[in-house]
Amino acid sequence: MTRLRFGITMSLDGYVAGPRQSVEHPLGEGGEELHDWVVATRSWREIHGREGGTTGQDDDIAAESWRGVGATIMGRHMFGGGDGPWGDDPWRGWWGENPPFHHPVFVLTHHPREPLEMEGGTTFHFVTDGIRAALERATEAAGGRDVHLGGGADVARQYLKAGLVDEMEIHLVPVLLGGGARLFEDTEGRQTELELERVVASPTVTHCKYRRTGSPS
Amino acid sequence: MTRLRFGITMSLDGYVAGPRQSVEHPLGEGGEELHDWVVATRSWREIHGREGGTTGQDDDIAAESWRGVGATIMGRHMFGGGDGPWGDDPWRGWWGENPPFHHPVFVLTHHPREPLEMEGGTTFHFVTDGIRAALERATEAAGGRDVHLGGGADVARQYLKAGLVDEMEIHLVPVLLGGGARLFEDTEGRQTELELERVVASPTVTHCKYRRTGSPS
Repeated sequence: MTRLRFGITMSLDGYVAGPRQSVEHPLGEGGEELHDWVVATRSWREIHGREGGTTGQDDDIAAESWRGVGATIMGRHMFGGGDGPWGDDPWRGWWGENPPFHHPVFVLTHHPREPLEMEGGTTFHFVTDGIRAALERATEAAGGRDVHLGGGADVARQYLKAGLVDEMEIHLVPVLLGGGARLFEDTEGRQTELELERVVASPTVTHCKYRRTGSPS
Repeated sequence: MTRLRFGITMSLDGYVAGPRQSVEHPLGEGGEELHDWVVATRSWREIHGREGGTTGQDDDIAAESWRGVGATIMGRHMFGGGDGPWGDDPWRGWWGENPPFHHPVFVLTHHPREPLEMEGGTTFHFVTDGIRAALERATEAAGGRDVHLGGGADVARQYLKAGLVDEMEIHLVPVLLGGGARLFEDTEGRQTELELERVVASPTVTHCKYRRTGSPS
């Protein structure tokens, strides 16, 4: 059965992006630092067409988070290109012509747009009828594999609040951002329906994985 | 020089006490679980007059957090006994007649009260003129040793926001409380003035220690 798997990196003070997000700082000020742990891994570098990288527990966890995934859901901000209608020369994502997904990606937006087929098997589909519709379409597209929920914070909170997340892994880094986009806010405490399954800890990052105990709502 | 050292245990979703704090649940619902790691240590048990307990890195960190401390500051809620004036038969703290501090403790409150001398060297002083006055009195009482800031969240946030914390150690546990008292809120991002000094991690608890880089404000 297809599960909705959510993974995100969070600062110790609870932010998944830093303050003052902009084109120069898509992850907010200081937000890049959140991802140092994953960018260093061999798995991440391989997916992004780069050489080298670390092996070991962080690499294993990065690889595991992408394994068995047949579709991805993300918010408009994570796809990028600013707010509002798409315009005549619309934004094609942060990832170049051959994005690292290699499967259908469902982008939640208020502005309709035709699907955007990229190289390497990634097609961006733009969903305007809400998180449940996006999950249904992604589940169908995943063909029995799992659906990965990427972020950002706003979309992740909506899925958490709706009780739709089956598995959640928080990669906690000891960075203090002081402000930005908070993950655990306005979720009405739905995260307590998730039970701790595994912790893998190092001084750089603590990976905390949770699994839903009850049935989906 | 005396430093203000702040240490607190926090859930992964950012709470230092659970929701619905009450006399039955002084740490809020689920809040007790935050402290399982420290209650298990030999140092904590010894200070609280109990036998046994674990040794190792958590125990070392617990012991370190109390070493070299000559005075403690805490909020009215942490001292306990409810809100409002103290009444005729006033609350004497959660810790019995011989509290585990063995040094002067400064309790921030809006309601004046005479000092309360307990057994074993602990005297509770009730400070009604704010956080800076409490810090001055605690610093003087510490006689060259450090001052420990205990909590709760409200008092800790006030000291953070005022930029008065010299050292902060967050003991992060992979518990999800879903609500309660949040530490990093309304601190105006002052925590970013603290620089990461050390992380000690295990699947049970990740200890993240920070030190102030700039000069006090």
